[in-house]
Amino acid sequence: MNIKDIIKKKRDQKELTDDEIKYFVSEYSNGNIPDYQISSLLMAIYLNGMSEDEIFTLTMEMANSGEILDLSSIEGPIVDKHSTGGIGDKVTLVVLPLVASCGVNIAKMSGRGLGYTQGTIDKLESINGFRTNLFFQDFISNIKDIGIAIMSQSEDIAVADKKLYALRDVTSTVESIPLIASSIMSKKIAAGADKFLLEVTCGSGAFMASEERAKLLGEIMVNIGEKLGKETVAIITNMDQPLGRYCGNALEVKEAIEILKGKGEDDVVSVCTWIGAYMLKLAGKGENIANNIKMIQNQIKNGEGLKKFKQLIALQGGDVNVIDYPELLDTAPVRLEVPATHSGFVSAINAKVIGEAVVRLGGGRLKKDDEIDNSVGIEVCKKIGDEVKSGDTILIIHSSDEQKARLVIESLQEAYNYSDEQVDKYREIIDII
Amino acid sequence: MNIKDIIKKKRDQKELTDDEIKYFVSEYSNGNIPDYQISSLLMAIYLNGMSEDEIFTLTMEMANSGEILDLSSIEGPIVDKHSTGGIGDKVTLVVLPLVASCGVNIAKMSGRGLGYTQGTIDKLESINGFRTNLFFQDFISNIKDIGIAIMSQSEDIAVADKKLYALRDVTSTVESIPLIASSIMSKKIAAGADKFLLEVTCGSGAFMASEERAKLLGEIMVNIGEKLGKETVAIITNMDQPLGRYCGNALEVKEAIEILKGKGEDDVVSVCTWIGAYMLKLAGKGENIANNIKMIQNQIKNGEGLKKFKQLIALQGGDVNVIDYPELLDTAPVRLEVPATHSGFVSAINAKVIGEAVVRLGGGRLKKDDEIDNSVGIEVCKKIGDEVKSGDTILIIHSSDEQKARLVIESLQEAYNYSDEQVDKYREIIDII
Repeated sequence: MNIKDIIKKKRDQKELTDDEIKYFVSEYSNGNIPDYQISSLLMAIYLNGMSEDEIFTLTMEMANSGEILDLSSIEGPIVDKHSTGGIGDKVTLVVLPLVASCGVNIAKMSGRGLGYTQGTIDKLESINGFRTNLFFQDFISNIKDIGIAIMSQSEDIAVADKKLYALRDVTSTVESIPLIASSIMSKKIAAGADKFLLEVTCGSGAFMASEERAKLLGEIMVNIGEKLGKETVAIITNMDQPLGRYCGNALEVKEAIEILKGKGEDDVVSVCTWIGAYMLKLAGKGENIANNIKMIQNQIKNGEGLKKFKQLIALQGGDVNVIDYPELLDTAPVRLEVPATHSGFVSAINAKVIGEAVVRLGGGRLKKDDEIDNSVGIEVCKKIGDEVKSGDTILIIHSSDEQKARLVIESLQEAYNYSDEQVDKYREIIDII
Repeated sequence: MNIKDIIKKKRDQKELTDDEIKYFVSEYSNGNIPDYQISSLLMAIYLNGMSEDEIFTLTMEMANSGEILDLSSIEGPIVDKHSTGGIGDKVTLVVLPLVASCGVNIAKMSGRGLGYTQGTIDKLESINGFRTNLFFQDFISNIKDIGIAIMSQSEDIAVADKKLYALRDVTSTVESIPLIASSIMSKKIAAGADKFLLEVTCGSGAFMASEERAKLLGEIMVNIGEKLGKETVAIITNMDQPLGRYCGNALEVKEAIEILKGKGEDDVVSVCTWIGAYMLKLAGKGENIANNIKMIQNQIKNGEGLKKFKQLIALQGGDVNVIDYPELLDTAPVRLEVPATHSGFVSAINAKVIGEAVVRLGGGRLKKDDEIDNSVGIEVCKKIGDEVKSGDTILIIHSSDEQKARLVIESLQEAYNYSDEQVDKYREIIDII
């Protein structure tokens, strides 16, 4: 077997065999094929696509390229949850304690933020003392103890995916559905859960701009899960504006606590309850989604979700006082209001611009090793459908200094579009696959 | 400017600007962009193509990335000739002395063979003592002296092309028309001639399998030449079977001498006279092609072409006795006849298989530094349209030992197809652009 022939085959729109996929994944992982041949293959895959069989084989080979976590010592089904990322998407922080509080075991490995979206691990680390770098035996014993643990992704799982992702990042081959699907699913499979709930975001603040592409990505990932006999549900959510009120690590933790206290905004609460309801279904806690939604709503009302979050913080070394005193979280000294440039109804928001502003304020990473400032972020005061007068505050910038805040004002104002006519609020849940 | 954005643009089927092309060619040449980003860009170019403007800019940037030869001290127009390569294609060896003998200056830089086609430089070096590694001042003075010089391509011209070609070779991005056209024309332009005659081969023994692709390549290269104000003609020739009787370095030199003595086979003589006639036209020696053909035929009959070839050999240090005693050329000790497996009319020959057999016999290179055996090759006894009986000799293998020869027999037999019905001989010249 020969990598040049494999590249040629994909270049000429032919299907790769299992052996060919195994060959390039393992030889690349072992350092026997240079980057410049794989990047050429990645571009051919980007432009010519992959069949379902090819995607499945690629996923399994990447999953098997590293450690596969053994969660068999934990009783009952383990449901994993993944989001393709979005602006202000703090759903994981809210929904995992809620579902765990219903008696479902949650073993969650999560990533850090890169580019214009933030990551769950960074958000949790904005709680003073919170450790995400757990030993595997502690991860398991925490789950046995309180039914939930969240740790940063091990360097040892899906190592081929890690190497391929780094190469995709510098060769403009990230936004390929077969490559995204196999990357996500290889990590999920290696992380050892039995069932998967996938939140596939779409819109101006997501990887997948269009509904069609988001649905296709969801379908492909569900197929991979089903083929492996692991029940998988994909929920397509709307990310055409930031989800909820805050974007930024500490601000989102604060908002997650508010949601668990029953004080969340409608859009983010709706996404959390739907996702929670489907996770309960996957865990065998109830077939009827309407009933499951009520169950989740009830865990907010009765405070059980918040209690579980507090247990999680305590067991992973974090300061539990943030639950009652959210002001203990890092807080930015400067707040700068962004005025609307027009009067009318907000008709569209470029959510990606808001995510990029958070990065420019120091709250995100452009490179893997960049330091981040957890305190900064953007507060979203006006959303699609809201009526505003020119000069009204549409956003509030939370910044470490005023100069940095002033640098992002103009792009934030340009991210808003207005209409003279009334604009419908949109649905948060687009589809369930 | 940023290479990731350039890759993304080409990936998304957008046209690159002049500045973007200049940027990636110069930064790659200077070692500031790694191979893995350029190979991804090359695959995007392969699959999404390039506009005429993009191809022209790429050609000029690669030409300007190294030395541009200054041939201005030579009087009269200088016509360069290039072939995209074929099996048994010894046209350059024959046509350059013929055209030079008509008083046209020939300054020819040529390459070595790689893969299943042989190169002019290797062929000439099979003449004992022939030096192809000339100093530039000797190259010029030889042309002033006898009107012709042939040297191996300088390492200093089109250096970006050299680096890009090496990368294309290992990333399955060779067979791209925009990349082939710009690679050939950048070297031609840097080699300093005023006019270009391009032999674009097509068929089973050529880079371009189809007439359509060969014509397209020819048109694009002619456009580049014209855009630069350098008159260019492309002649599309048929390479659906080996050209002439022999394939292999010394065997082809022997055949070239026979052709110059008036004893060549019809197909190769026809291609040589047409190409020679168009070179005379480019050099201003006559507008009428029929007259020019007669002029070339006359230079064969009166022995002037042969005399010029002898002068060339002498001035570059070769043994001129090969002209009268071709048996002085390296000769393989073993000759093994290949019998026809069927009776009927030869209907098709896979010429590439014959070229690959020459390589397997040791007469070609798989890697740039492979040593080659000039004596070996294949003699083609039966060609398309010939009637054969099963067992008749279709080919003769010239080999250093019998075992090597036996290893290629079966594939050579499979390269021949037969028909029960009579098969037309084909035209050698497909089109002139």
